[in-house]
Amino acid sequence: MKIGVIGYGYWGPNLVRNFVELPTCRVVAVSDLSEDRLRRVRARYPAIETTTNCADLLSRRDIDAVAIATPVSTHYELASQALAAGKHVFLTKPLTRTAAEAERLIAQAERRKLVLHVDHTFVYTPAVRRIREIVRGGELGHLYYYDSVRVNLGLFQPDVNVIWDLAAHDLSILNFLLPSLPIAVSATGMNHVADKPANIAFLTLFFEDNVIAHLHVNWLAPVKLRRTLIGGSRKMIVYDDLEPSEKVKVYNKGITLTTGKESMYKSLVGYRTGDMWAPQLDVTEALQIEGLHFLDCVRSGARSMTDGHAGLAVVRILEAATESMDRRGRPVELRDQPVALRDEPIEPVDLGWKQAVPT
Amino acid sequence: MKIGVIGYGYWGPNLVRNFVELPTCRVVAVSDLSEDRLRRVRARYPAIETTTNCADLLSRRDIDAVAIATPVSTHYELASQALAAGKHVFLTKPLTRTAAEAERLIAQAERRKLVLHVDHTFVYTPAVRRIREIVRGGELGHLYYYDSVRVNLGLFQPDVNVIWDLAAHDLSILNFLLPSLPIAVSATGMNHVADKPANIAFLTLFFEDNVIAHLHVNWLAPVKLRRTLIGGSRKMIVYDDLEPSEKVKVYNKGITLTTGKESMYKSLVGYRTGDMWAPQLDVTEALQIEGLHFLDCVRSGARSMTDGHAGLAVVRILEAATESMDRRGRPVELRDQPVALRDEPIEPVDLGWKQAVPT
Amino acid sequence: MKIGVIGYGYWGPNLVRNFVELPTCRVVAVSDLSEDRLRRVRARYPAIETTTNCADLLSRRDIDAVAIATPVSTHYELASQALAAGKHVFLTKPLTRTAAEAERLIAQAERRKLVLHVDHTFVYTPAVRRIREIVRGGELGHLYYYDSVRVNLGLFQPDVNVIWDLAAHDLSILNFLLPSLPIAVSATGMNHVADKPANIAFLTLFFEDNVIAHLHVNWLAPVKLRRTLIGGSRKMIVYDDLEPSEKVKVYNKGITLTTGKESMYKSLVGYRTGDMWAPQLDVTEALQIEGLHFLDCVRSGARSMTDGHAGLAVVRILEAATESMDRRGRPVELRDQPVALRDEPIEPVDLGWKQAVPT
Amino acid sequence: MKIGVIGYGYWGPNLVRNFVELPTCRVVAVSDLSEDRLRRVRARYPAIETTTNCADLLSRRDIDAVAIATPVSTHYELASQALAAGKHVFLTKPLTRTAAEAERLIAQAERRKLVLHVDHTFVYTPAVRRIREIVRGGELGHLYYYDSVRVNLGLFQPDVNVIWDLAAHDLSILNFLLPSLPIAVSATGMNHVADKPANIAFLTLFFEDNVIAHLHVNWLAPVKLRRTLIGGSRKMIVYDDLEPSEKVKVYNKGITLTTGKESMYKSLVGYRTGDMWAPQLDVTEALQIEGLHFLDCVRSGARSMTDGHAGLAVVRILEAATESMDRRGRPVELRDQPVALRDEPIEPVDLGWKQAVPT
Repeated sequence: MKIGVIGYGYWGPNLVRNFVELPTCRVVAVSDLSEDRLRRVRARYPAIETTTNCADLLSRRDIDAVAIATPVSTHYELASQALAAGKHVFLTKPLTRTAAEAERLIAQAERRKLVLHVDHTFVYTPAVRRIREIVRGGELGHLYYYDSVRVNLGLFQPDVNVIWDLAAHDLSILNFLLPSLPIAVSATGMNHVADKPANIAFLTLFFEDNVIAHLHVNWLAPVKLRRTLIGGSRKMIVYDDLEPSEKVKVYNKGITLTTGKESMYKSLVGYRTGDMWAPQLDVTEALQIEGLHFLDCVRSGARSMTDGHAGLAVVRILEAATESMDRRGRPVELRDQPVALRDEPIEPVDLGWKQAVPT
Repeated sequence: MKIGVIGYGYWGPNLVRNFVELPTCRVVAVSDLSEDRLRRVRARYPAIETTTNCADLLSRRDIDAVAIATPVSTHYELASQALAAGKHVFLTKPLTRTAAEAERLIAQAERRKLVLHVDHTFVYTPAVRRIREIVRGGELGHLYYYDSVRVNLGLFQPDVNVIWDLAAHDLSILNFLLPSLPIAVSATGMNHVADKPANIAFLTLFFEDNVIAHLHVNWLAPVKLRRTLIGGSRKMIVYDDLEPSEKVKVYNKGITLTTGKESMYKSLVGYRTGDMWAPQLDVTEALQIEGLHFLDCVRSGARSMTDGHAGLAVVRILEAATESMDRRGRPVELRDQPVALRDEPIEPVDLGWKQAVPT
Repeated sequence: MKIGVIGYGYWGPNLVRNFVELPTCRVVAVSDLSEDRLRRVRARYPAIETTTNCADLLSRRDIDAVAIATPVSTHYELASQALAAGKHVFLTKPLTRTAAEAERLIAQAERRKLVLHVDHTFVYTPAVRRIREIVRGGELGHLYYYDSVRVNLGLFQPDVNVIWDLAAHDLSILNFLLPSLPIAVSATGMNHVADKPANIAFLTLFFEDNVIAHLHVNWLAPVKLRRTLIGGSRKMIVYDDLEPSEKVKVYNKGITLTTGKESMYKSLVGYRTGDMWAPQLDVTEALQIEGLHFLDCVRSGARSMTDGHAGLAVVRILEAATESMDRRGRPVELRDQPVALRDEPIEPVDLGWKQAVPT
Repeated sequence: MKIGVIGYGYWGPNLVRNFVELPTCRVVAVSDLSEDRLRRVRARYPAIETTTNCADLLSRRDIDAVAIATPVSTHYELASQALAAGKHVFLTKPLTRTAAEAERLIAQAERRKLVLHVDHTFVYTPAVRRIREIVRGGELGHLYYYDSVRVNLGLFQPDVNVIWDLAAHDLSILNFLLPSLPIAVSATGMNHVADKPANIAFLTLFFEDNVIAHLHVNWLAPVKLRRTLIGGSRKMIVYDDLEPSEKVKVYNKGITLTTGKESMYKSLVGYRTGDMWAPQLDVTEALQIEGLHFLDCVRSGARSMTDGHAGLAVVRILEAATESMDRRGRPVELRDQPVALRDEPIEPVDLGWKQAVPT
């Protein structure tokens, strides 16, 4: 299979590197508006052709699929052209700038029987896949909350606010972990640079059964944090993506209900603490697992774990959150539910290439 | 000066220990409903009298002041009786369960020229006092945000939700750090135990000049976190109260605005990174500084740094936040502003007793 | 039982506080050379008598036992006088300045049937007791090494080098964990202040069966570290005493032996990684458990877990290490073995007083 | 300039990647004994030729320099052949298995006026270069100690013990930081796998002026640690290479000498604490800086910062340490000093390629 990559800015180099190393495909061309960046492509990969015009990729008959890593505002147009040219599409998140655009891309891909895959990378990490096993296996008891902090000092996206950039990750994780989608969202945030989109935001998502999720995103934080707490009635998880080894810790902690003589209320809520346990995680790079899954979907016609519907589900929440943020937290209900997402997890293929563990 | 302490549960023992060690006062009596707890008072401090009836303390003519460390729901009644008995009052936070109660206590204390002091302990910590110097001195540039996470596995309060327990700390810090009070609040949260108050909550506070604050409180977290990020246009602070030594770190980081040729927009927001600096903090226990300040106010008639008005300002926000939380984040405006808070910081007295640094 | 405490400097206040809170004994008097310190005793404990002359304690007929918390150089003289006066003795570590002194104290105590207890506090911590269960239970497989770092910025002891101050802790832990004593020691170190004892030192201890231990002590470190790695053929432990909760972590990691085709040697050593597990530890303060154990030995005549022989075993290694350090690491054999130490662990009594978990 | 790389095991891929990206050279061929590994070379870099016979590289006239990344035991033979073939040589550390071999290579390179460069990578890291500025600038006052812990769960080297693998890094750093070389070494260690070299070791190095260094290396540790404390009379450094951002922290801490009335000695040593400061470090990859420096030496004939003499100085200490370890720490003097090392630091060239900062 032959692949072209459109966009070689922040994320594109990772896509090229990963597809280059997969045994079942070949990266034949890369396009980017900047000649400087294309020079770096050629320095690293002399065999890859480069162009400043992405139409050159779409018109090539030998290219089966394109990976698109450009700003969100260009996603709809580029993906639509690629599908029209008969290419399978691998799109960085978020899928599109509006739910309407996402729906049109989904329809277009289904009509042409092409794969429309959204790069919700975290869904393919060993950590998130293991957390899903724990959550879905019932080990936490009743799920209470998902609480994520994802902040750092980062480049402002030119075309979207920080929710579309950072919270999109957590929304894809949430939709993967939980069996149902949120029913309402309240968001607050602020832009601190005039004429620029919001650079700090806080989202609360309400689910059925008293499950609550909170996302905390910030482009202007002095330190980088990637930590999620997941609480249940019996156990709780701390997932810290910056930990080099124990990324997922399961705490055997919870609450107890006692009828205390000192209490002026009927029952007294206490807490219970027990052991902590950190499962071993495999160290395969997520993009490798995801790339193989994409290639497998193209080959076999299987439904992608993060297809257009998964992308649309995230975009709908992003739209609602932005609307709520503009109104200082006034809650917005999420009514139009997408079709059910693919619910059986993938079986990752292990190529035997582990991430290097440097001394 | 002679002091009586009402309540020897979670916080009372700290109050007793600190007042016992101050050279200018004497703890003469402790009351608590539990005879068990009083036994522990007598084991540690054989010279202190104990009683299960707090009225015994209020009726003693030789007691000048009482410190009250009981559940919030009892604050108004106990403090009101103490003021009526002519005692100066030192009350654990939050001041009262409603703003109306707080206003009545303030009026009562002013009428009788008695000190009404709220134990907003964090305001007296070396870390928070140093952060105030940095923020007020303009070192951060324009203030952008205050973002606090204060979570742990803790006992549910019987009479108030987690906002009244944990967010009260941050609100007192915020009102101490910033020159003005918030203008609106949006809060979300959830109770996961039937018939109990909310155990997890998220508050966004809106201030003038695009300053935003966010508080993150949770009684059901598997780990204890106490971390605040404070962002400005020129520098940023990370305040981690659990760090044994460098609690306050000042990052010389911020944003840059450039006109990039690659950008499709007029200006491009980048970031700037520089050195990090952790000022040395003195290690005097906050309660000691606060206790001496209280005694000084009683003696001299000076206004307490955390008097009834400071307590009322916090209670008003707590009321509004609870109202917003009941409506899933719908913002509530804060209109009734209290009289200006005391704005000159105290000069801490150093007794020369440092916290032990064990090997 | 009535107790007197000699020395109210760094460690004495902890001894007084703990014995005061034990239900089965009473602290009746404290002696210290400094009138300033005695003033602080009286402020906290008005019922305790104070004196600058420790002979006043020894001559009192109503005192059954004395706890001695003075510089090492005074231990032999004070303990000997106390035993001569018929008092049971609780001595801070290390037991004495020489093995000869220790042997004389042991003989004296045995002759008079008095308890001679050395305050090897760490042996009584929940963490070390749990590690012993794991090590002795065989969970680690063959024991390979014990590797401890114990450094901080601390007051130089006036009369001993840093080995006698800090390494004494690890030696007592090692003798408690392992079934046999070291057979040789090599130590290096340096004094950086003229005329003062060594302030940094490194000890290697050799045991039977290729077990090796290394201790790393420093009074001049910019940060405080208390971390021990314990490696075995099947599992390994990280014990970090500064961790607020997970002090002990057990890693299911080890080595593998394979016959690799690429290897130029017969077998290739690889490694195996698995889950990590942090057992819950109880939170009783070690000194409380130790104090109750001491009182129980006095009452019942049972042998103390850390009696004179345990103290002597540590002093012998300290002497040999100092000798080796003076010769830049030349190894010194440890031949004179003390009588076997008590090997059955104590059953800690739980008074139900947990350490406060502050919000 | 054209480069060949011999060895594509653990470190070789990093060398290839870095030389590929340098604008002033081209990697034309890679040799490795494993056809499997060569397949991976071709997948990533279709333009690079591969061979299982390194003689193919040495016989090519168009190759100017070779980078050798093979086991230590092969270094002398391969480097000697490469120099004989007129190639400049870039060798992974340690230089050779014996000082005698190193001396022969140095002589051979000097005779033929070829560059013999040892890949002491850490010398080229922004962190170590900054520490050198601080140490040499006198900011720490009198230097007291260098104390490094470098442990992890790693593959056993087939042909050398853990000292030659891990301590070699610290020795190159030490020789770069300090103005003079060590005068004696005491080392201890142990092998826990029969017939294999020592897997855990502890080295003490003695320098003039009471400076002491200690290195702590272990292939069998459950966690990865890379932390060095550097103490001086006025300030101290903590260098943690695993910290993502603040790798170097400078503590304004030290000791004080006072004449205390309570002391029984003439002077009392206390300590002084002040602010902490973490200088910003640039984020250029060390291998890029080092590669450019090597190419510059080849081109201009300048002396490499880490030439054969620097490599020999390290090998001499490694030999002495192994000898001391075999004798349980008996100190070994280091008499044969190499010629003075290059002492002026390089001026790193910035290609403007920063390490990616992933979100």
